[in-house]
Amino acid sequence: MDADLRTLKERLAEIFDLSRAMAVLSWDQKVTMPTGGHPARAESLATLGRIAHERFVDDEIGFLLERLRPLEESLEYDSDDASLIRVTRRDWEKQRRVPTELRAEMIRSAALGNQVWIEARASSDFASFLPALRRNLELKQRYVECFEWADSPYTPLLDDFEPYMQTSEVAEVFGTIRPALAELVREAPEVDASFLHQAFPPDGQAAFYGRLLETLGFDEGSYRLDPTVHPFCTSFSRRDVRMTTRFESGLDGLWSTLHESGHGLYAHGIAPELERTPLAGAPSLGLNESQSRTWENLVGRSRPFWLHWYEPLQATFREQLGDIDLDAFLAAVNRAEPGLIRVEADETTYSLHIILRFELEQRLVEGSLDPADLPEAWSAGMAELLGVDVPDDAHGVLQDIHWSQGGIGYFPTYALGNVISLQIWAAVQDAIPDLDAQMEAGELHELAGWLRDNLYSLGRKLTPKETIERLTGSPTIDPEPYLAYLRDKLAALPAGA
Amino acid sequence: MDADLRTLKERLAEIFDLSRAMAVLSWDQKVTMPTGGHPARAESLATLGRIAHERFVDDEIGFLLERLRPLEESLEYDSDDASLIRVTRRDWEKQRRVPTELRAEMIRSAALGNQVWIEARASSDFASFLPALRRNLELKQRYVECFEWADSPYTPLLDDFEPYMQTSEVAEVFGTIRPALAELVREAPEVDASFLHQAFPPDGQAAFYGRLLETLGFDEGSYRLDPTVHPFCTSFSRRDVRMTTRFESGLDGLWSTLHESGHGLYAHGIAPELERTPLAGAPSLGLNESQSRTWENLVGRSRPFWLHWYEPLQATFREQLGDIDLDAFLAAVNRAEPGLIRVEADETTYSLHIILRFELEQRLVEGSLDPADLPEAWSAGMAELLGVDVPDDAHGVLQDIHWSQGGIGYFPTYALGNVISLQIWAAVQDAIPDLDAQMEAGELHELAGWLRDNLYSLGRKLTPKETIERLTGSPTIDPEPYLAYLRDKLAALPAGA
Repeated sequence: MDADLRTLKERLAEIFDLSRAMAVLSWDQKVTMPTGGHPARAESLATLGRIAHERFVDDEIGFLLERLRPLEESLEYDSDDASLIRVTRRDWEKQRRVPTELRAEMIRSAALGNQVWIEARASSDFASFLPALRRNLELKQRYVECFEWADSPYTPLLDDFEPYMQTSEVAEVFGTIRPALAELVREAPEVDASFLHQAFPPDGQAAFYGRLLETLGFDEGSYRLDPTVHPFCTSFSRRDVRMTTRFESGLDGLWSTLHESGHGLYAHGIAPELERTPLAGAPSLGLNESQSRTWENLVGRSRPFWLHWYEPLQATFREQLGDIDLDAFLAAVNRAEPGLIRVEADETTYSLHIILRFELEQRLVEGSLDPADLPEAWSAGMAELLGVDVPDDAHGVLQDIHWSQGGIGYFPTYALGNVISLQIWAAVQDAIPDLDAQMEAGELHELAGWLRDNLYSLGRKLTPKETIERLTGSPTIDPEPYLAYLRDKLAALPAGA
Repeated sequence: MDADLRTLKERLAEIFDLSRAMAVLSWDQKVTMPTGGHPARAESLATLGRIAHERFVDDEIGFLLERLRPLEESLEYDSDDASLIRVTRRDWEKQRRVPTELRAEMIRSAALGNQVWIEARASSDFASFLPALRRNLELKQRYVECFEWADSPYTPLLDDFEPYMQTSEVAEVFGTIRPALAELVREAPEVDASFLHQAFPPDGQAAFYGRLLETLGFDEGSYRLDPTVHPFCTSFSRRDVRMTTRFESGLDGLWSTLHESGHGLYAHGIAPELERTPLAGAPSLGLNESQSRTWENLVGRSRPFWLHWYEPLQATFREQLGDIDLDAFLAAVNRAEPGLIRVEADETTYSLHIILRFELEQRLVEGSLDPADLPEAWSAGMAELLGVDVPDDAHGVLQDIHWSQGGIGYFPTYALGNVISLQIWAAVQDAIPDLDAQMEAGELHELAGWLRDNLYSLGRKLTPKETIERLTGSPTIDPEPYLAYLRDKLAALPAGA
């Protein structure tokens, strides 16, 4: 049995190495690759993906998992080895259903679609993106056919990002927050935030974000921050974490940096024992996103945090912020204000952007919305949910990278992350009663350490709901703390400031 | 037969994709990776190398090659398909002899050795590098045992970089140039080159090198230039070429940029039909190096080139070069002056640095020199060949990256490249009689185009000697044009300037 476990681990380590190599290729594609590199990169990614898939769905992995059942049952449920066998079995059973050629084609098509999208967005030309979108959607529909589902063909796609979650469960959570958020947005006071959208010198931003990063609990020499069009985070090991941000969009890059750092801290905090195994990740994107939102919002828009950091920020951007006092700054970064762009949205409107995408994605996958009709459906949804007019596709349906890369089913995890972040935050506040005082002193290590020890280090050993239950005492995804947090935040804004 | 050829090409394309993915991982390791990433990167590289090796040495590739013999014989010798079958057969027969685990271990050990070397060099501590060096050497000795050789156990290592070349042939060429170069160095006039070693602002260097690169014949969006400690060039496809340079060592980065651009133009010029095949490369490192030296030296230190570029250079670095006239600049960049560091060496002393390494490497591989005794042997060699005293290991045996990465047998290709560059240059001058006038006008496209069409585009279709013969009319590696070029160059220097 020991030999079987060793063999399983060796095989999984090799597959993990392939997946991390793919992550390096993708990071390079987005951060450094010359445009001429796209076709060859798509082939390389498809080849690595094909090999990784072939090796993982191999019969022998199934035999090993079967022979390891007695060992699994003899061990504690959340031990590293029992978890490895259990989680690998679910992954294997899911991946086995997918033909290798379909997997490779999805990867190739995603890599090629990305480049098409960059050009289409730059010229706000949805028509030029449509064939790539159709192709990705068609592949996803073939993918869905590999699975059974109870409530919606969207569920197998959702499951790739949010394992064990049903579309109907998401719809229920969103059914609660949709009207509540719409009401909050309608009633929110207007706040002047124009100063956030000035030009902030990139050098100053890079230096300031670098200083922030040093306080978040990363080991030295284990991460980097680079500029990209679309901020993201990836990691190649727990000691090689790559975050990206942007410098062109006012001061948005600051919260992008904190957001991606939340993802980065998750990757950095995974237990070393789980390295080079399928457990070296987050249980779901919702949980991963709960942490990016924690650092971006619960920390990064809080008064205690800025009581420490606002003076250094003002000193860095004297010209832009010299006349703005802390209260005006906090009001601006905590306001609710309908807008066109998801990644620039405030905390209150953000989930409404997601609900639109969730609804459109379901219709696309079910076949009740043709991709050609997306721009129109997008405009209608934006008018209904946020009361804004979409001027062009670059500010509408072309704004996000996800669909170009075949990431259908991904969006809802953002809003789930918002909701979950507040459930976990309550546990954090119980555990660290003087957290506000620590943040005022610029001290974030106890927070980072608690989250690492109680959440990040677990990796994928538990399911998303088991993980949430371990932290909060209940497996339920409960939107109430999230809504209460937003209500309190908006009530604290100066009326008509 | 067509189906066999198609199958062979598919398999080779997949292996090529793996090798390019490894190249991306290596580029990232040297250019962008945080130090914490090394252990995981070594595993990823070893896994990809193991898979690529396994897939290549597979029996089925051998069967395909055997079945394709009649097709090969029915085609022109230098047709794409005949060349593919012939070159792949030689590669396959060679790789088949190497156990996959040895190959993977060589890659892992190379990736780990690289990090050890960086730290050892920074603290000039040879002892801390010794275990990694011993390990790499021991693996190379096991590698040598996989092959038969006629003249020296060094030949199988040399063959990895310079196919078909015998150690004794290199020794013969070096036997001719060794005394000739030593004499040239002894008799060369002293020239003041101190102005080249001032600090040149990195921003100005980056901008100027960027302008130079735009004139060399690269398609837009097909390359990039990044700073590294140790300049190098790699490519992931002909339209994704990565060059690196450095900004810390006076104006050396200018010639590093031109040098790496020569490698880059080679990769960029390979015929599109050869992409994703084993033919997408240079026939040997000597030929590849002949082109880096062509652009660095034959172009980049020539009077016609600088008649165009010196004014813009002066304008960029007014403070550093404002008082230096063109003649003084040309004398400095063409001088012969013994020094400690290979990569900073002038054209005349450069090959003497190589001869030292070639002699030491042979003794290491043959076992007549223990790695522990290298620093001493290095100092003795530098005193004999160049008449200089080595103050410490950082300026001696630790200066080069190669041995840390297992690159034993690589060095002689640099000096062979110097020699070959002049043989090819004679052909270039015949073909483009007004080349000097073009360079004076800043016009390099005809030169780049001729080299692309007559050399780079061939890829690995011909052997190194066949390639040289096609360009020069003779397969012999002849050091005379190289020595004549240096004699003329040094004779033109102002005596006692």
